Order: sequence, then C-alpha cells, then structure tokens
Amino acid sequence: MAIKNDIIVMKFGGTSVADAKKIKNVARKAIKAKEGGSKVVVTVSAMGSTTDDLIEMSNQITGAPSRREMDMLLSTGEQVSIALLSMAIHEKEQPCISLTGNQAGILTDNIYTNAKILSINCNRITNELKKGKIVIVAGFQGVSRQNDITTLGRGGSDTTAVALASALNAKYCEIYTDVTGVYATDPNMVQEAKKIHSLSYDEMLELASSGAKVLHLRAVEFAKKYNVVLHVRSSFDDIEGTWIMEKTNEKMERPIITGVSYDTNQVKITVHGLEDKPGIAASLFGQLAEENINVDLIVQNVSEENIATISLTVTENDKDLAKKVLQELNYKNFELDTEVGKVSIIGAGMQTHPGIAAKMFKFLGDEGINIEMISTSPIRISCIIRKDKIKSAVKALHKGFELDK
Amino acid sequence: MAIKNDIIVMKFGGTSVADAKKIKNVARKAIKAKEGGSKVVVTVSAMGSTTDDLIEMSNQITGAPSRREMDMLLSTGEQVSIALLSMAIHEKEQPCISLTGNQAGILTDNIYTNAKILSINCNRITNELKKGKIVIVAGFQGVSRQNDITTLGRGGSDTTAVALASALNAKYCEIYTDVTGVYATDPNMVQEAKKIHSLSYDEMLELASSGAKVLHLRAVEFAKKYNVVLHVRSSFDDIEGTWIMEKTNEKMERPIITGVSYDTNQVKITVHGLEDKPGIAASLFGQLAEENINVDLIVQNVSEENIATISLTVTENDKDLAKKVLQELNYKNFELDTEVGKVSIIGAGMQTHPGIAAKMFKFLGDEGINIEMISTSPIRISCIIRKDKIKSAVKALHKGFELDK
Repeated sequence: MAIKNDIIVMKFGGTSVADAKKIKNVARKAIKAKEGGSKVVVTVSAMGSTTDDLIEMSNQITGAPSRREMDMLLSTGEQVSIALLSMAIHEKEQPCISLTGNQAGILTDNIYTNAKILSINCNRITNELKKGKIVIVAGFQGVSRQNDITTLGRGGSDTTAVALASALNAKYCEIYTDVTGVYATDPNMVQEAKKIHSLSYDEMLELASSGAKVLHLRAVEFAKKYNVVLHVRSSFDDIEGTWIMEKTNEKMERPIITGVSYDTNQVKITVHGLEDKPGIAASLFGQLAEENINVDLIVQNVSEENIATISLTVTENDKDLAKKVLQELNYKNFELDTEVGKVSIIGAGMQTHPGIAAKMFKFLGDEGINIEMISTSPIRISCIIRKDKIKSAVKALHKGFELDK
Repeated sequence: MAIKNDIIVMKFGGTSVADAKKIKNVARKAIKAKEGGSKVVVTVSAMGSTTDDLIEMSNQITGAPSRREMDMLLSTGEQVSIALLSMAIHEKEQPCISLTGNQAGILTDNIYTNAKILSINCNRITNELKKGKIVIVAGFQGVSRQNDITTLGRGGSDTTAVALASALNAKYCEIYTDVTGVYATDPNMVQEAKKIHSLSYDEMLELASSGAKVLHLRAVEFAKKYNVVLHVRSSFDDIEGTWIMEKTNEKMERPIITGVSYDTNQVKITVHGLEDKPGIAASLFGQLAEENINVDLIVQNVSEENIATISLTVTENDKDLAKKVLQELNYKNFELDTEVGKVSIIGAGMQTHPGIAAKMFKFLGDEGINIEMISTSPIRISCIIRKDKIKSAVKALHKGFELDK
C-alpha cells in the first residue's frame, strides 16, 4: 500500500449545495479543512432538484432523449455548482478553482448516462493544488476519448470522489450527506440506534445491499478495490461520522454484530408443483437472469411425490416482469406475496463467533416471529418474515445483540 | 474571395429558444433548411432569462465574482439550449449533434467574460456535417489554450455565428431574431416604416451605432472583415428578412438614403470661457479618452475676445464620469443638457449624390426644428436637436427622403 498524500477529498451531495446559504457552508468546511493543513479537493453534485428540473425540461421536448444529449444537458447541473462554490470560496479570500470532469482529466468510456471511469489524469489538479488552491471538481461527469461529455449514472458523484481519492492517493475521502453517519440500524425505527464509529467495506456493502441507503454500493465497491478510506458525515455539523476502511488492529474490540438492516421492498414468489428433476430450477432461474431480474433468496422444498415447491424473492420493481417470465414458461401454479420483508444482521465478527444464527432465530422466535426463508453470507444473515413484523424484528435484534450498548 | 460552401449557419437568440415549444420551432426551421439542400450549422443562445437567472445566483454568493468562474457558470446556459435543441431535432428523426464551444474548436484568448476568438478548428464540425448531421454549436462561448471555458461578452452568440460562417466558408449566416428584419426607421415611431431588402456592412454599422439595435456592432464588423453574408430575419415566420453584404451590382437601383435612426441616450455638455489657444481642447479630450468616455459630436465656437465655447455629446451612462473629469480639470463654467437627442440619416448613396445634407436641414427646418450640432461620416449625417423633437424629426426625414415609397 502506497504512502498516502496530505490530500483529502470532500464530497457534497445535492442537498448540501441546495442554495446560496448552504453553498457558503460548504465553502466554510473546505476552507477549514485546508487551514487544518490538508490539500483539499472538493466534489459536488448538482444543486437540490436541478437534475430533476433538467430531466423535466427534456421530457417537454421528447419522450426518448438521445443519451449523449442527456449527458450534455445533465452535466450543466454540476458545472453550476462548482462555479458558485468556487465564487463562495473566493469571497472568503481563499485561492480556489473549479474544474469540469473534462478539465479534471476524468476519462470515461462512452456509455452515455452510465459511463465508467477509465482513468484520471491528475496533472491539472495537482498543479492547481501546488499553487495553494482548493480544487473543486464537478461530480458525476467525465469525458470520453472522443471529447464528448459523459455522466456516471446513479451515485455518480460518490464515485467521482472515491476515484479522485484513489488517483490522488488521498489520505481519505469524506462523503458529506444529510445524516451524521452510518447507524447500527435505522434511527427512524429504533430511537436508541447508535452511530457506528467504523466498519469494513464488506460490512458496508452488506448493510447497503440490505437496505441502508447512506452510500451507493458502487462507490463502496470502488473504495474497497482501491483501498480508499471513507468518512461518512453530516454537512450540517462538525461531528465525526463513520469511517469505512479495511479493518486493521481495531479488530479485537469490535462488536460481533455491526448493524441490523431491513428491506420492505421485497416480493416473495412461490412456484408449486415443479417436477423434482435436474434442469427444472435451471430453466426458471436462467430465464429470470436473462431478463436482468435480481433474485435474492431461494428456498426449495420437495414433497413425497417428487414434486418440488420453490420460493424466491425479487424486488418490488421486478415483480411484474418476473410474473411475465413465469407465465411465458407456462408455470400455472404460482403465487406472489407482497406482504413480506427482509431483516438482516451484519457483522464481520460472526465469521469467528459460531452460534450467531441460532441467536438471531431465538430473538425472532421470542417475539413470535415466523421465519419463512433464510439466506447467509460470511458476514450477514437475512430472514424473510411478514412485513408487519419488520419493526418488532429490528427492535428485537438491535436489543438482543446489544447494539444499544 | 473563396467560393462558398453549401453550408449555412443559423443563429437563434434567447427569445427564440425560450421554451419547449419555441425550441421545437427552431428544430423545424433547421430541418427545413437541411431539406432545402444545405448543410446546416445552428448556433443558439441561452434560453430566455437563463443568463440573468445565473447572474442572480452568483449575486447571492458574492458581489465580485471571479471572471473565470463567471464564465464557468454562464456557459451552462447555452449548453442546456444545444442539448434540448438537439433532442428536438432527434425527435423529428433527423441526425443531429450538439457541440460546446470547446468541442466545436472555438479557441479564444483568456480574457474571461469578454474573450476574443483566436481561431476555429472546424474538423469536428465538418466531420459531423459529412455524416449528414445537423450540427448545433453553443453560442457565446469558447475555450482558452489552458482548456478553460471563456465567454465572448455582449452579442457573443452573433459573433459565434459569424465566426463559424467565416471559418466554414458558409454561403451565408442567418441571424434569427424577434423582428422581421432591418427597417428604414423604427416601426414603433413611424408606422409606414419599410423593411430594407439589403444594405452594406457600413450602412448597417452606421445604423447600429446610431441607435438601431437589431444586430451587435461587433458581429457586423466581424462579418465585414471576413465578408460573411448576413441575413437578419424573424424566428416566428418564414418571410425573407434583410440581407447585409458588400454591395455589388445592386448599387444602381438602391435608394440614396437607406435609413433614419435616432438616439435619445445623449447628453450635451457645453464648456464656456476656454482660452482659444493650442492644447486646451487636447487636454480636455485627452482626459475624457483616458477615462474611456466616448465623445460623439463636438462643436467649437470662438467669440471675439479669443474665448472659446466647446460643446460635445456623451452617452447618458458616461454623464457623471464626464462631469467628474471636468471638475478635476478645474473647469468651472460648464453645463449638462440631458434634453437632447440625435437623429441620423444613413445611406451609401450620399457619397455620389451631393446636397443630401442641405435637404436634411431643410426637412428639419420645415418642421421648425433647430439644429444644435452636426456631425457627418461618408455615409451618415447626424444632428443634435431637442429631445422632444425627435419623433417629428424622424417622421419628417422618413417622409422627405421617400423611405415610405
């Protein structure tokens, strides 16, 4: 691992730059970070609802906009933010410069509206940093080899920040958002929920994919791949947030379970009367995969007459498409159940502590909650239960695993 | 003179692309031009009040924005327009591509907010035209050698259009606006005013500098320098407008006087009691020039005692600065008169027809209008008169020189 530079990358989302007052607040934070002795690179998203407003404008013109022109249009949102933020920093008499994705050297492929970063040529950024400037880079955008503007798709500004932190070999990458960090569970559901001080990339990935929406999966995966230390914190106070990094010497004192997450955006599909012979399940799941339907949990039961029942879960969004696939495959005896939810416990500690699953089932059983399906990863256990039991399940697991301590 | 290509450049101002409906109208015009057999390059300004809205946003951040960041901010306005217009043309199933100033190869100096075009590398544009595409170029913007975004200042989109027409050696450059062409005089003042079919660059320059505001001086000067044929016409109908070009075989049939213009934005300054000796006037006008005050007309009278009186006119905007200069030069006996106006007749024909000035003075005299100051150029005669006589002067000259015929 290379020695880190004294550079930090700070990323602010759309709500953090939604108006002049908030932009001035971001300017203050950037200046403070620089006065703290770091070289500062700031990435920002488009202000508030700007992106939605631009999409609405394009809707008035056409129902099927060219993706290249969509990127031409949407990239203006971040360009406005960087110019205004730079002005706000100048107003405080600090040297500063704004750079578009193109100017910052962010080269992408040419998959418009969902481009991937190929490389970052940091010459311009490092030159400006050397001149003592705070450098502000437009999030979410890059440029293709053909000199066309591209955007990075959902979570694009987070990805820009992490990619910049990696390319610049930054000390860490701070993701400023409207929450104060990552919580052991949803504070809206469990009032006693505590902010997590630090967790590993894998734990964050499992939390994110199990329903916690602080960070985009893509940015965390990128951070893991390039070993970028992330710090998730609030734009609206100066309190330390949550650190996400490869676990090191902290390991001993970490709790076994890091968090409890839930997802009510699940649909359970049960297919009855399947012949229990090789290839049947393959044709079903093959066809679902073909349609890009992400199947989460799967359970198969075989009855005495060699007739199988398969249950699986998909997201609410894929419900209708999954139904269509089953009909096209001539499955007649199936049912969709939208009244389910998923509750998960996540913790790297469970790898070295056996019996965690048994504990989880006991905590749920004590509440009279029936477990319908189970899936596990090395650091996660998920259960499908009735949707109306989600809240009591989350509370019971949070209390049972002593996350309030 | 090089043989012209089959390219036409069409420029649409902010009012022509102010909403989705108007953008669709511009798309229709561009497609029609292409179906007429031309290769089409379109330049557009920012939509409606976008530029003012962006300036207002910057005002909320700082009173003294960095000019570089101002260009970063303002250039987004045109970028939104080109993306939406390109979508509107795609919607009609015509191949089309939008290009920023950078992508269009418009290289400028780095005088932010008022940059000058240094050169245009047309490779990208001509490649896209060869592929059969309509090419839409953001007006008002370019890129410096340092890869920074610049804007061209007032009338910038007109300048972009004329510069592109010159670089592409286009057949002509159409400037679409909210009026149907250039009129012999202001139709708001003289109902019978007729649209001029064609006039020379010099006539247009004199008209523009004498108060007619259809085209920016800078774009006309650029067109003259590079011999670009201009066609000024309305965005909202398909009627032929006014052609501006070097006069050729048309000369014989052209009227002697092309137009009557007026300017009520004038202030007359009279300085009494000046010693009539060399250097006195020089020190006065030298100091005014030093302060960038544009002096328009000058008259000097000498009385019997070798004491001179100088009258001059400046624009309303420069009034206070001129007053300050006079005070600093210790002139005590001077007066400012804001109740004056300037009326001008313009026509290349007056060069070969003597007696035009005498006719003008007679037409004004017949209306009882007193002429206070006079200035002339080879193709223009201007008179300073009382401001409240401007309307009757314009009407009398329009009728006298038979511009209604």
